[in-house]
Amino acid sequence: MKVKDIGEQGLLRILQKFCPAEIVGDDCAVLPTNPHQSLAVTTDMLVDGVHFSDRTTGPYYAGWRAAAANLSDLAAMGAKPLAVTVALAVAADTAVLWVEEFYRGMTACLEVYHTPIAGGDVVRSPVVTVAITAFGEVECDRTISRANARSNWAIVATGFHGASRAGLELLLNPEFGQNLEKGDRTSLILAHQQPKPRLDVLPILWEILDAAGEFSIAGMDSSDGLADAIIQVCRASGVGAKVDRTKIPIPHSLSEIVSTEKALEWALYGGEDFELVLFLPIDHAKLLVDRIGDGSAIVGITTESSDIWLSDSSGICFDFRLEIDRGFQHF
Amino acid sequence: MKVKDIGEQGLLRILQKFCPAEIVGDDCAVLPTNPHQSLAVTTDMLVDGVHFSDRTTGPYYAGWRAAAANLSDLAAMGAKPLAVTVALAVAADTAVLWVEEFYRGMTACLEVYHTPIAGGDVVRSPVVTVAITAFGEVECDRTISRANARSNWAIVATGFHGASRAGLELLLNPEFGQNLEKGDRTSLILAHQQPKPRLDVLPILWEILDAAGEFSIAGMDSSDGLADAIIQVCRASGVGAKVDRTKIPIPHSLSEIVSTEKALEWALYGGEDFELVLFLPIDHAKLLVDRIGDGSAIVGITTESSDIWLSDSSGICFDFRLEIDRGFQHF
Repeated sequence: MKVKDIGEQGLLRILQKFCPAEIVGDDCAVLPTNPHQSLAVTTDMLVDGVHFSDRTTGPYYAGWRAAAANLSDLAAMGAKPLAVTVALAVAADTAVLWVEEFYRGMTACLEVYHTPIAGGDVVRSPVVTVAITAFGEVECDRTISRANARSNWAIVATGFHGASRAGLELLLNPEFGQNLEKGDRTSLILAHQQPKPRLDVLPILWEILDAAGEFSIAGMDSSDGLADAIIQVCRASGVGAKVDRTKIPIPHSLSEIVSTEKALEWALYGGEDFELVLFLPIDHAKLLVDRIGDGSAIVGITTESSDIWLSDSSGICFDFRLEIDRGFQHF
Repeated sequence: MKVKDIGEQGLLRILQKFCPAEIVGDDCAVLPTNPHQSLAVTTDMLVDGVHFSDRTTGPYYAGWRAAAANLSDLAAMGAKPLAVTVALAVAADTAVLWVEEFYRGMTACLEVYHTPIAGGDVVRSPVVTVAITAFGEVECDRTISRANARSNWAIVATGFHGASRAGLELLLNPEFGQNLEKGDRTSLILAHQQPKPRLDVLPILWEILDAAGEFSIAGMDSSDGLADAIIQVCRASGVGAKVDRTKIPIPHSLSEIVSTEKALEWALYGGEDFELVLFLPIDHAKLLVDRIGDGSAIVGITTESSDIWLSDSSGICFDFRLEIDRGFQHF
């Protein structure tokens, strides 16, 4: 039996047997280190030609994106980054400049969040491969898990979705979107090349939840798409959701390059926007969206029934069920 | 300029510019997390055909060795393991059984030391690649660094050297070492396939150092060979050493398969014995060797002059200078 016969999900199911159930299944593993704090850990492996390619992403941006993806996982748990380690496999004929630019991009992103590269490994391989592990500290009573959502809570997207996917399309097809204004074009491309992990949301969130006197929150990041994040949190929490398609924050410029349906598809399934998708009581959610501004929105509400519907408050479109398998299958 | 033009050391020098000098250069990065404890972190990347091969190491043993190497780095810092993360790249036609056996081997080793796999990543790649990151807790006043050795201290090897290299030779050449007794043969092969990280040495060490009332120690593990460990610690500490070739613990069975010179070469440069090489005041070293027993030995003494000599207390061989570059060059 080969990996392709069982697919990524099948392989993950087998490998999860080797991991304690209570610490896997979230954006980070959370390991208690003292009575008040835990260690949050996340790891990503990136393979040349699979996760990055010089065609769309020069090494600087590949490095930036790799760092951002890991910091976003920490943000999704409510963790403050401590450091990352980087294991790098390069071929004998890999250009030294490529490696330097990759590290320059990585550290440029990490420095914004005061996060050092604490160490690593360098080996040779026929295929350039990078594995990044990020560590953060999370207070035990401020850990954002996927499994804590309750019904009748608001679902907040902390920013625009679909921009990264649009930026990728612009990079892949230079003849695409010629009608875009230069500023909009740059902004979509940057959304793909230099995504910003939303660690800035955490202090605002703590302020609101501390004032409310209750830690009622669940969430994850939208690295695999907004639909995936909503479905994963609903499943882990045993709730359903009603998501309003008219409320999903999609950059206006997308309407100039693709149909409304395509823009919605990119927002839901494009992935790599690295926003947070947070589930919390409606009053807190309203305060949060007011404070974050800039593309953040309440996109839906959780329900007791476990179905997840994409509805249309404008009454134009039929409701339809949000499915996870329109997302990306790695094998 | 390609990676092969500057070699592994050249590449490492470039990449170290991106890391804070005070936290790289030891077996683990050490990150202070609270006033008493630090987080020790180490990462290794393993590539099919470079670091493991079905010819010498089935997936079970490749997994065991990968876990052991990381736990050994923690032991070398004085750290107690907390957990590991595993990032795995597999090809579509990788056998599922290979992956399962690899994880079985890894967890078999980890379970001995009560260390869970806390999470990971699974991606596809043309080349099977594994990145393991291990983290442990180390008390701030019990961190074993490379840079703390002083002159006139003893150098302790916690066990036999050369066994792993001999085991590899037996696996590579089945016609080699036919005269070995079966028990000796198995024991050398197991030294290669199932090395044991020396976490068991730490409680003994703390007892001796606590009783002495002073934390006088430096060290690292011998994953890259005994010579490499001695030279690295001496360089980091600004001392030299006189190593006695007659005191290096080499399994007796090696004398039945190779010359004395070859056995010494394997002990010094073979690597992957995963013992600890500890530098400490002579009285403490004697107590330590008495307590550990089983192949441990004082192999030399540090000196004020920065030269590192391999001498012969039996008077048969000339002294010669220990060099690092007889070790393995990865590019």
